[in-house]
Amino acid sequence: MTENSERYVVGVDFGTLSGRAVVVRVSDGAELGTGVHEYSHAVIDDQLPKTGQRLPPDWALQVPDDYRDVLRTAVPAAVERAGIDPAQVIGIATDFTACTMVPCLADGTPLNEVDGLADRPHAYVKLWKHHAAQPQADRINELARERGEDWLPRYGGLISSEWEFAKGLQLFEEDRPLYDKMERWVEAADWIVWQLCGRYVRNACTAGYKGIRQDGRYPSVDFLERLAPGFGGFVAGKLDQEIGRLGSVAGRLTAEAAEWTGLPEGIAVAVGNVDAHVTAPAAQAVDAGQMVAIMGTSTCHVMNADELHEVPGMCGVVDGGIIAGSWGYEAGQSGVGDIFGWYVDTAVPPSYHEAAAAAGETLHEHLTRLAADQAVAEHGLVALDWHSGNRSVLVDHELSGLIVGQTLATRPEDGYRALLEATAFGTRVIVETFAGNGVPVRELVIAGGLAKNALLMQIYADVTRLPLSIIDSEQGPALGSAIHAAVAAGAYPDVPTAARSMGKVRRGVHLPDEQRARAYDELFGVYLELHEYFGRHTRLMRNLKSIRRTAIAAQSKEASR
Amino acid sequence: MTENSERYVVGVDFGTLSGRAVVVRVSDGAELGTGVHEYSHAVIDDQLPKTGQRLPPDWALQVPDDYRDVLRTAVPAAVERAGIDPAQVIGIATDFTACTMVPCLADGTPLNEVDGLADRPHAYVKLWKHHAAQPQADRINELARERGEDWLPRYGGLISSEWEFAKGLQLFEEDRPLYDKMERWVEAADWIVWQLCGRYVRNACTAGYKGIRQDGRYPSVDFLERLAPGFGGFVAGKLDQEIGRLGSVAGRLTAEAAEWTGLPEGIAVAVGNVDAHVTAPAAQAVDAGQMVAIMGTSTCHVMNADELHEVPGMCGVVDGGIIAGSWGYEAGQSGVGDIFGWYVDTAVPPSYHEAAAAAGETLHEHLTRLAADQAVAEHGLVALDWHSGNRSVLVDHELSGLIVGQTLATRPEDGYRALLEATAFGTRVIVETFAGNGVPVRELVIAGGLAKNALLMQIYADVTRLPLSIIDSEQGPALGSAIHAAVAAGAYPDVPTAARSMGKVRRGVHLPDEQRARAYDELFGVYLELHEYFGRHTRLMRNLKSIRRTAIAAQSKEASR
Repeated sequence: MTENSERYVVGVDFGTLSGRAVVVRVSDGAELGTGVHEYSHAVIDDQLPKTGQRLPPDWALQVPDDYRDVLRTAVPAAVERAGIDPAQVIGIATDFTACTMVPCLADGTPLNEVDGLADRPHAYVKLWKHHAAQPQADRINELARERGEDWLPRYGGLISSEWEFAKGLQLFEEDRPLYDKMERWVEAADWIVWQLCGRYVRNACTAGYKGIRQDGRYPSVDFLERLAPGFGGFVAGKLDQEIGRLGSVAGRLTAEAAEWTGLPEGIAVAVGNVDAHVTAPAAQAVDAGQMVAIMGTSTCHVMNADELHEVPGMCGVVDGGIIAGSWGYEAGQSGVGDIFGWYVDTAVPPSYHEAAAAAGETLHEHLTRLAADQAVAEHGLVALDWHSGNRSVLVDHELSGLIVGQTLATRPEDGYRALLEATAFGTRVIVETFAGNGVPVRELVIAGGLAKNALLMQIYADVTRLPLSIIDSEQGPALGSAIHAAVAAGAYPDVPTAARSMGKVRRGVHLPDEQRARAYDELFGVYLELHEYFGRHTRLMRNLKSIRRTAIAAQSKEASR
Repeated sequence: MTENSERYVVGVDFGTLSGRAVVVRVSDGAELGTGVHEYSHAVIDDQLPKTGQRLPPDWALQVPDDYRDVLRTAVPAAVERAGIDPAQVIGIATDFTACTMVPCLADGTPLNEVDGLADRPHAYVKLWKHHAAQPQADRINELARERGEDWLPRYGGLISSEWEFAKGLQLFEEDRPLYDKMERWVEAADWIVWQLCGRYVRNACTAGYKGIRQDGRYPSVDFLERLAPGFGGFVAGKLDQEIGRLGSVAGRLTAEAAEWTGLPEGIAVAVGNVDAHVTAPAAQAVDAGQMVAIMGTSTCHVMNADELHEVPGMCGVVDGGIIAGSWGYEAGQSGVGDIFGWYVDTAVPPSYHEAAAAAGETLHEHLTRLAADQAVAEHGLVALDWHSGNRSVLVDHELSGLIVGQTLATRPEDGYRALLEATAFGTRVIVETFAGNGVPVRELVIAGGLAKNALLMQIYADVTRLPLSIIDSEQGPALGSAIHAAVAAGAYPDVPTAARSMGKVRRGVHLPDEQRARAYDELFGVYLELHEYFGRHTRLMRNLKSIRRTAIAAQSKEASR
């Protein structure tokens, strides 16, 4: 048998706008070649392709064949750039955005590819950020609370409008004939594996986090029928499927997929996975207490633990949801990098743009450098990082941003630093909520684009008093998929073992400074007071959004007269 | 006797950085000529002139001879530009910033002009915005509360660090030899009159609002002695003086002042006055229920009423404080135009600057035009206008700015409009507090530079549900002084009568729109909740400032090691 140092795997990460394939050496995780393909239809949130039919607000669709294009172009490109012989590739694995749903026939054909259905909006992929199923999610939550469904606390007390049941119910209610034609309601994470190996295996991760599968069961027929008469058959008819453990083999690469990718027919195809969760082994963070924060426009937190605990406000806890054999916990912050981006785009005056340009810095770098010179609390500000609502632990999309402490001496870098700190305080709330419910955190492991900002990283270490490690790869999810491919191909006995050889992390890059940590304790006290008042005590933010909606509706009515 | 249409008066307004003289026709208030003189020493807040001695933080001094320069240059310039014969001028009157204090010898010589004292900071004028006497003010308030002094409620429950007693006590405690040399502690408003007519008459306005003179008495010797042993003689020794009613004659123009000004020796010199208060008759707003808001960097509200009521959080109520024979009420908002200015300077991105320039607009005009297109509440924001603390009705300088409701869709014009509205909500709180304590408001009369912003004015009308009138003069205070000069010269029997002929106002320029007013009621409810929570319930903002001070102090200590 060939040595692992001469064997390779391919990891493919399917993001929101593009797919990225990476060729990785099995022995040490070296990343040898990368290929990227941008989806030609990107995100469809305005009008359907070809027919031009307008979509309602909050819709976000995709076209499944764009995903196949990634297999056809990015994978061969990565192999070519790696300069390896494709015959040395022993396995392939994928990760995907979630919850992203493909309505299919029983053979996996997406409904939008079925004759005569291309003009039906519900025939397309509902991307994770399709938010038009909020009324359905509200009803699911209300009924689940009313009936005391035992699965609800596994999701911190709230099912998201982004998930399988809310999106499925929307389809059922808005296009019943199409719903009746649909034979499978498939996570894109599993659909792409089906395309590769010709077998439909449902991965344990999305089945748990997005599909409300707990202790081997889904919500009951009775529950679904109460939700909407006729919807009772949803699970048995369209959702239920063999579950695959993460890192196991879903099947073997088909001749067709071998032709698309240029990889050997018959190599191992791993069970599907999710971009955030698959990053944990890529960062060698598979043990209890190692919380991985994937920090980009938003932040997703994933962590393993040996025991099951119900943490209020978490996104979910799933048996084998991250690593088979452990309980996988997930939490999230709905706005992080995008809040910093919004500030830089809308709230910084020309003199700063000019100074940044003169110094050869981006505006982010410029503001960061100015902010880094300050002592903790010198700016006198505290912000709430809720511009896109709060995912964990308040689970309330009606919340909004806030900043307090402004004077006429407040400068742009002050507001910027206050927002960086607000997201760190948000993380500390999550960490403390986990710890307070039996799931202690002992290390923060950072992945994602924001890991590059050293000030931000140091703030997180100081605010949380946790040692902070940083993934040592620019393509964490694809590397994580490659690790799963290696395990599926039998090169390692399990994912944790593979992660020790193939994962990459710089440990303890930022350590908490006790003096700054004490100063942050005081600011965190202020943050917590705002968090409790606006998040739990008053309905002020909710009222403000409601007043706003009424104002806009009245204006449209006025305009349409 | 010559007709009023051929007689003139001169009003001189002494501001923070310059003095402005206006020649006004007695018969109809026509403004015929203006002269302006900028103080050569402006505001001294960094180092003393000549000696270069550094000043501590929060100091703000001026040089009295700069005020005489206004008489020497601005008055003759105004007369010349008016094209009148100086012999036709029958009187002169002045108004001043307050509380601005000149330490003097018994003959009115300012201490900084006394040999050997020019190097003593306390020998100079303490300008209204000298804020270094806060510790003294705190002690005055504490002791007054403890003893239940009956004058305290006349000031809404709090004496300001800007006023005569706090500043005087600071001088007493920080330079006792100089305090002992000082024979009179004189409002600049009265000092300038003393320069004109050679007589020291204390005007009823500043004696009441700034000098704690109520019902003919000042704080008692016992109170002052308890405050600081040795300070008991302050009132009798340095403060007490003949009181002059507003609009009465203080004296006659001396030969020396006639030479400075080019005006006839012996004409009437009116009792001194304050810039805000003197504006009321200039805007024909001398009746009960007519609240004048002088809106600039900050806002001062003045209003007459027939009865005495103690309004919590007002700046003061003084018998004859605005118009002799009425109770004059004063309130204030510590930040208004300067908050809008801060926002425009620090929080608006280059694309808006470019669009404004392309449209030939100032940035204020540009943001106002964009904001004007919105429906009430469309931006989804509410702000607290406390960037410089809150004067009325909370009287708390430790408060700070806040904005809530931000999302990633929030634009620069949204934040701008929210700040305009916040100041209108602040005015509504004052109006409702007055009304709720027996002092109803039936009309808002606006003076000051912000009256030019039509959107802002309409917002004030809609938010307060009051008809809004606007002064029809660019130089309200100087016109108000001219009215007092005409009364002092005997051309009219009293100020209200003179105001009917000489004052200028456009009545009901903006009327409340009921639909917008109803929408604002909802936003005002949100503002009120924030106002009560942050202003009265929690100490969060105060804590934030205290944490900030500790951080800065620790940093200085660190740096000096």
